[in-house]
Amino acid sequence: MTDPAARYSALFARRAAKPVAALFRAGAASPQDVIPLTYGFPDPGSFPYDDLAAASERVLDDGGDTALQYGPIAGDERFRDHVVERLRDDDLNVSADSIIVTSGGSQGIQLVTELVVDPGDAVIVEAPSFIGALQTFRNAEAELHEVPIDDHGMRTDKLAEVLARLTVEGKQPKLIYTIPTFHNPAGVSMPLARRHELIALARQYGVLVLEDDAYSELRFDGERAPFLYELDPEGLVIQVRTYSKILAAGLRLGYLVAPEALIPRLLPLKVDVGTSPFLSRLAVEFAADGRLAAHIERLRGLYRERRDAMLASLDEYAPPPTTWTRPEGGFFVWLRLPEGLDAGALLPRAEQAGVSFIPGTANFTHGDGSRYLRLTFSFLPPDQLTAGIERLGRAIQAALAGG
Amino acid sequence: MTDPAARYSALFARRAAKPVAALFRAGAASPQDVIPLTYGFPDPGSFPYDDLAAASERVLDDGGDTALQYGPIAGDERFRDHVVERLRDDDLNVSADSIIVTSGGSQGIQLVTELVVDPGDAVIVEAPSFIGALQTFRNAEAELHEVPIDDHGMRTDKLAEVLARLTVEGKQPKLIYTIPTFHNPAGVSMPLARRHELIALARQYGVLVLEDDAYSELRFDGERAPFLYELDPEGLVIQVRTYSKILAAGLRLGYLVAPEALIPRLLPLKVDVGTSPFLSRLAVEFAADGRLAAHIERLRGLYRERRDAMLASLDEYAPPPTTWTRPEGGFFVWLRLPEGLDAGALLPRAEQAGVSFIPGTANFTHGDGSRYLRLTFSFLPPDQLTAGIERLGRAIQAALAGG
Repeated sequence: MTDPAARYSALFARRAAKPVAALFRAGAASPQDVIPLTYGFPDPGSFPYDDLAAASERVLDDGGDTALQYGPIAGDERFRDHVVERLRDDDLNVSADSIIVTSGGSQGIQLVTELVVDPGDAVIVEAPSFIGALQTFRNAEAELHEVPIDDHGMRTDKLAEVLARLTVEGKQPKLIYTIPTFHNPAGVSMPLARRHELIALARQYGVLVLEDDAYSELRFDGERAPFLYELDPEGLVIQVRTYSKILAAGLRLGYLVAPEALIPRLLPLKVDVGTSPFLSRLAVEFAADGRLAAHIERLRGLYRERRDAMLASLDEYAPPPTTWTRPEGGFFVWLRLPEGLDAGALLPRAEQAGVSFIPGTANFTHGDGSRYLRLTFSFLPPDQLTAGIERLGRAIQAALAGG
Repeated sequence: MTDPAARYSALFARRAAKPVAALFRAGAASPQDVIPLTYGFPDPGSFPYDDLAAASERVLDDGGDTALQYGPIAGDERFRDHVVERLRDDDLNVSADSIIVTSGGSQGIQLVTELVVDPGDAVIVEAPSFIGALQTFRNAEAELHEVPIDDHGMRTDKLAEVLARLTVEGKQPKLIYTIPTFHNPAGVSMPLARRHELIALARQYGVLVLEDDAYSELRFDGERAPFLYELDPEGLVIQVRTYSKILAAGLRLGYLVAPEALIPRLLPLKVDVGTSPFLSRLAVEFAADGRLAAHIERLRGLYRERRDAMLASLDEYAPPPTTWTRPEGGFFVWLRLPEGLDAGALLPRAEQAGVSFIPGTANFTHGDGSRYLRLTFSFLPPDQLTAGIERLGRAIQAALAGG
């Protein structure tokens, strides 16, 4: 079959020269009777419809003219002030001038990538990592170098090796991309000691650190470690955050926190004329009077129950020697199949058994990870999660039996 | 003074290696007593606050779950269907699969740039052109080639020369960027014959055409010429559009229409996980029952009156041999100062006289344009426009007198 895009082939930039397989997406809905443990989606039942409608009315009532007009490229000022206040509650003291409002956290990743990555530049990523970030780095034609993670996040001993090797090769690594808290897809978090080691290495080699903090506010138990940004303020860390998990993904609202000196270099890269002032103001109005804090507290309870249901059913139904992570927050459990099994091969069998998941291969850049798969507990109620895991356990069992 | 970003200099990508002067923006507010003919902003008095609040309530009431959830990367399906219907009213028959929803028109320009431009690639732009697009091309490290415009838009005879020259130099031009209708900043429009010539040249040289159509719905008089996309459907044209001028800029909502074969190549470049489904649905709900059409009709009347006021005052107050364009729609008048005057030098004098404008130099890529300036008639009521132009006329007069 002819590629319909072939007639344009003389025009494509290198990044677009080859077709890219569509990522696993909402669009590709599961069959009716399959329980989807796939989507990294918030629970739609959790969305605060009425409070958002009321907030919207207030935005349009009072000061609506600036909410509907072009605003500063860095983003709506009231929203940035609101972010400053929220971060202060987290012991993070930043100025509104350190903040750029973005279309979700993902646009923050894109801006930082454009800030430092020329084609061929070295970017260090965790293995596994967030698929969307990997796609962004590939679009920038970065040379990706993997550092494995374990139950405590990025292995800083391996990071040191990669940095030393790149130095020997005469390459200045530009960026270390990490999800230190409630990792996507792995669910794990990096303890304080490793965070210090990571910052020390970044300083030693003069590398920027991109801290993707999409999930840290959804902690169910344990104590939070300081943000990487907190350990090196105005230094080498840029943090990206999102309202997708704590409010609603369909807003597409996020922000980044960067050393103030970098903001003037980031702004010319944000060519979308600023992220929606209307959405920004909507979030501010919604958050007022402690509503956002109370909402996040509710979400913690909701997702904790789901995490517990998933882990309990894995304990019950996953045949040994299957292993999995035990996240203290976030959306995901990362499962390793018994040796000899392959997540991609298991998927059709699992779907026949009535459950789906995301095979882990796309989360690695060098083709590893065939034994891994991602399970999401955020999207479905506990009984569905339990039923789904039971079916998954059966599918693994059958595969082990060579059936 | 030390550049605070200097400590990061080993990390910057080429595109971010040098500080970029901040563009003229809303943030840089004019002094209280200065009439700003600067902002390319819609009139905030025109925003349909109540109808938007009601639309927002309906979105959150009915089907709010999908409006608040992640959606397809190409954008909300109901919004794309709504766009298809609106385009059909304009005799443009496209499929929803040809549409990608974007954060304003500007993100569409960015996606198309990333689709075709590698560093050093030739991009052809009008002189003058839209500052935001020029910034986007510079971020992509395009090599920019200018084609002058006249009262009928891009000069296709000069375009032919540039294309022929690039061919002799062995360069495949990747993109022709044009604003054929109600040009920003020049206000002019391209008649049908030139549109045909442009398409013929694009075909002859196999170049993609990016048709920026931000203003065509704000026509005050004259007959519309077919869109470039209409003259070459599923061919070499990608059109970008926005709701910034016809609804509210603060939403940051736009879309692109591309040959269907190009959509799968564009989607992996849209790494922001899709433009806000909530905003998209808000626009759909607002538009229902003919509200958007009626609103645009109102805007046409509003802006026509302002255009008329600005042109009448220019006729009255601008000293010869000042010349200016007479737009049939859009937001802008483009003014050429008498020989020997410089818009940059005139600005402080004009501000002292109580009026401001945007000097034209930033709209050119090769340092030309010092005699030009942009005047915006969309943002202020007629009496203010008249007062502003009277002050501008006085400032030009004084400059001519060498005062």
